[in-house]
Amino acid sequence: MRTSPSLASGPEGPDALRPLLDTVLDALSEGTRARGGPLPRGGPKAVAARLRDAVGDVLPADGDPNALHTVVHALAETAADPAAPLCTAHLHCPPLALATAADLAASALNPSLDSWDQAPGASELEALVTGALAREVFGSGGAEDASAPPPATPTTRLTATPTALITTRLTATPTALITTGGTESNQLALLLAREAHGAGLRLVHGANAHHSVPRAAWLVGLAEPVVVPAPAGVLDVAALDEALTELPGPHLVAATAGTTDAGLIDPLPEIAELCAAHGARLHVDAAYGGGLLFSDRYRARLAGLDAADTVTLDLHKLGWQPVAAGLLAVRDPGDLAVLHHRADYLNADDDTEAGLPDLLGRSLRTSRRPDVVKIAVTLKALGRSGLGGLVEQVCDRARDFADLVHGHPGFELYDPPTISTVLFRPAHADDDAVAAVRRMLLTDGRAVLGRARTDGRLWLKTTLLNPHTRPDDLAALLNLVEGNTPG
Amino acid sequence: MRTSPSLASGPEGPDALRPLLDTVLDALSEGTRARGGPLPRGGPKAVAARLRDAVGDVLPADGDPNALHTVVHALAETAADPAAPLCTAHLHCPPLALATAADLAASALNPSLDSWDQAPGASELEALVTGALAREVFGSGGAEDASAPPPATPTTRLTATPTALITTRLTATPTALITTGGTESNQLALLLAREAHGAGLRLVHGANAHHSVPRAAWLVGLAEPVVVPAPAGVLDVAALDEALTELPGPHLVAATAGTTDAGLIDPLPEIAELCAAHGARLHVDAAYGGGLLFSDRYRARLAGLDAADTVTLDLHKLGWQPVAAGLLAVRDPGDLAVLHHRADYLNADDDTEAGLPDLLGRSLRTSRRPDVVKIAVTLKALGRSGLGGLVEQVCDRARDFADLVHGHPGFELYDPPTISTVLFRPAHADDDAVAAVRRMLLTDGRAVLGRARTDGRLWLKTTLLNPHTRPDDLAALLNLVEGNTPG
Repeated sequence: MRTSPSLASGPEGPDALRPLLDTVLDALSEGTRARGGPLPRGGPKAVAARLRDAVGDVLPADGDPNALHTVVHALAETAADPAAPLCTAHLHCPPLALATAADLAASALNPSLDSWDQAPGASELEALVTGALAREVFGSGGAEDASAPPPATPTTRLTATPTALITTRLTATPTALITTGGTESNQLALLLAREAHGAGLRLVHGANAHHSVPRAAWLVGLAEPVVVPAPAGVLDVAALDEALTELPGPHLVAATAGTTDAGLIDPLPEIAELCAAHGARLHVDAAYGGGLLFSDRYRARLAGLDAADTVTLDLHKLGWQPVAAGLLAVRDPGDLAVLHHRADYLNADDDTEAGLPDLLGRSLRTSRRPDVVKIAVTLKALGRSGLGGLVEQVCDRARDFADLVHGHPGFELYDPPTISTVLFRPAHADDDAVAAVRRMLLTDGRAVLGRARTDGRLWLKTTLLNPHTRPDDLAALLNLVEGNTPG
Repeated sequence: MRTSPSLASGPEGPDALRPLLDTVLDALSEGTRARGGPLPRGGPKAVAARLRDAVGDVLPADGDPNALHTVVHALAETAADPAAPLCTAHLHCPPLALATAADLAASALNPSLDSWDQAPGASELEALVTGALAREVFGSGGAEDASAPPPATPTTRLTATPTALITTRLTATPTALITTGGTESNQLALLLAREAHGAGLRLVHGANAHHSVPRAAWLVGLAEPVVVPAPAGVLDVAALDEALTELPGPHLVAATAGTTDAGLIDPLPEIAELCAAHGARLHVDAAYGGGLLFSDRYRARLAGLDAADTVTLDLHKLGWQPVAAGLLAVRDPGDLAVLHHRADYLNADDDTEAGLPDLLGRSLRTSRRPDVVKIAVTLKALGRSGLGGLVEQVCDRARDFADLVHGHPGFELYDPPTISTVLFRPAHADDDAVAAVRRMLLTDGRAVLGRARTDGRLWLKTTLLNPHTRPDDLAALLNLVEGNTPG
């Protein structure tokens, strides 16, 4: 019998992993040094060639004992490093070392959450964590927040006024499903709504909604969604009222708490009231904004969230997890009955009757990685105060950056940030120049900036998700843009 | 400014990770020792209570510095360990230490495959690996295998006869998408078929298909599928011919290469011929059987696979990856045009024109973890010969076990294995006793066996995926079942 390569679990697993992890850490260090900046130099073609040359044949006839070092080194050398302060384009967070280390345990033990006998403990851990997070969303949210201080930087786009909205008191306990991210959460939310109201359901969403919302309607076979204008970046409540009045139902309204372009929050209390008045179902995509729940200072900005039927959360944004760490919080757990699914090899009736938990109805996936492990470790290690502190740090940093832009004669600020996104542009530059400076910095490997088109113009976007970013870094970023804008 | 917890990437990332990884490895060792067997003792309620007590509050007000050790230890103590030789129920493989270590790099650098500026190198690595795997499926498959030796243990259910089927020569290069597993691959296959043929498409699948196939039809809004009988465990070709002749099209036929219950392979060449004759589209779910592609000895069993339009593969089965490592191989890359999706912040027209790759159409997800990293390291480190050797080892072990069962007067063997699944039952036991012995061994923490209902009777199932399992382990497993069957 030939020798087999070592396995990650079992009594010998940790000893087999130790030297391999050393190789990975060394390759990460060396690759990061070789890169030298927030992303590799040279632009797409050059970077692709460098990776291809470094990796060589990915499926050779016979194995290459250096493969682990080779591939990890090449990956690190050609990565856009989310921990680099000038890597600030997207909702692409630098993961915590703690969460990353915890995720190793998920990989090594490889529990799969489709049956109890593949994940006896992990399934209970998931129940604990999803219950706790669902309580953050739906629990005693409204009441608790009434006494919270007003938001630190109110903007005209923010609705923080407490309303008289009475949310239905719950008899069943809210729950949450773990997903691969906001997109799958939105897909599941639409599927649950379709099953609750039939395939004639009409999705109504703002022009500011994430692209995955209409894409999910396409996936699950709903009619073309109705798009409500969002001229100020948030869903227009009067236009929503009109749409719900004029269009035949049933309706699913999808609102956003933390838009991708500007980090704005739709007026959730007013939207929830309209939904209640029109008998519409409400989904809130809080993939970005949901992290504010952890902050006593910012939590009140999510007033009204607890009136939603379903809420998308995403801890690989304001939660500092490696991808994937999405959730769909569900107010009425009865909604999940439609996901119930029977497969004799996983949840036979007599096994369920004999007390084996039936996990198959917690996801559309079958084999399923326990992303809950890293989430559980992070929540417990940091606590609400620690996570809230990180949220406040990046929001404060975004305010600093907005102040810097606002005070600089060479730049125009779109608006003070609601969460941690700042849109800005060099004054007197046209859209082509804005697009060009971003691509130039990308190609030169000096900064990763995002872009957003709003108010009919193209803006540069920074999404501050790195709690280690210092005011100096932000000044350097602004200098870099100033010095490289064409014209 | 308060101190923030360390990040996983950047120049300081590896040093921050090192002590945390030590904590994880120690907690894995200690938790595994505390468990002492393939799974924890006591059954669902007791195990859940043990985990809850060990973990405590998952979202405390303030952080707990021991959280990483606490949670990982509890997880290991309450895991069903896929590396334990008596953990042999499901398509739930023990991951290679190598793949597990490589996955750490994906977590640490956190590339997200929805835009080039979040994954400059990872996106090229994915292109390399998916291209190589698509070539394994569609490449020169048929021609190459014509000279391969016949399968080692032919069974009446296996169709290994070369056929005169001429597959269409390709002008475009086949490709593959990376998914969360066989289930998402099947969903994507149905979506691509729906878009190619319209929502009137009729899915036709065998009674032996994985449950995710009809579930995917429900997800994407297709009509109730037509189920073709599979009395011998594989799709009945005459019944398929009849269904395709009588029912109005367009049709999508879903065949299986490696059934979940018995590891059988549908007669792919005949099915492909029928699809060609009736103008039906063909999808093959090779989530389990696809791994045979790596073995020169077993590859010929997949003859006909290259005639499919889409093929589900899953390297967290016969590929020894931590979940998730699914793929959907697509013969005609033009089929993917319907996934094309535009989001100004990720793939604006002017960016695409300027040469930034557009990655959004490679998945239904948006943020997407580079599961390709661990796959690339494994393929390169083992090569085709190394992976093929592992496949052959577990198939050989399954044959050994089948021989053991067959030679034992106290047991009945369902059939010699086609891949690595063996169904067996204690002779003279009724179904209740079969179900009971499995649950007893689960509750006592002594063995994880699967179950399958076929031929109208309930069987115990072992799916041998552990290349380290020895003949002794198999004898011990059989003794355990013998000694614990009631009645």
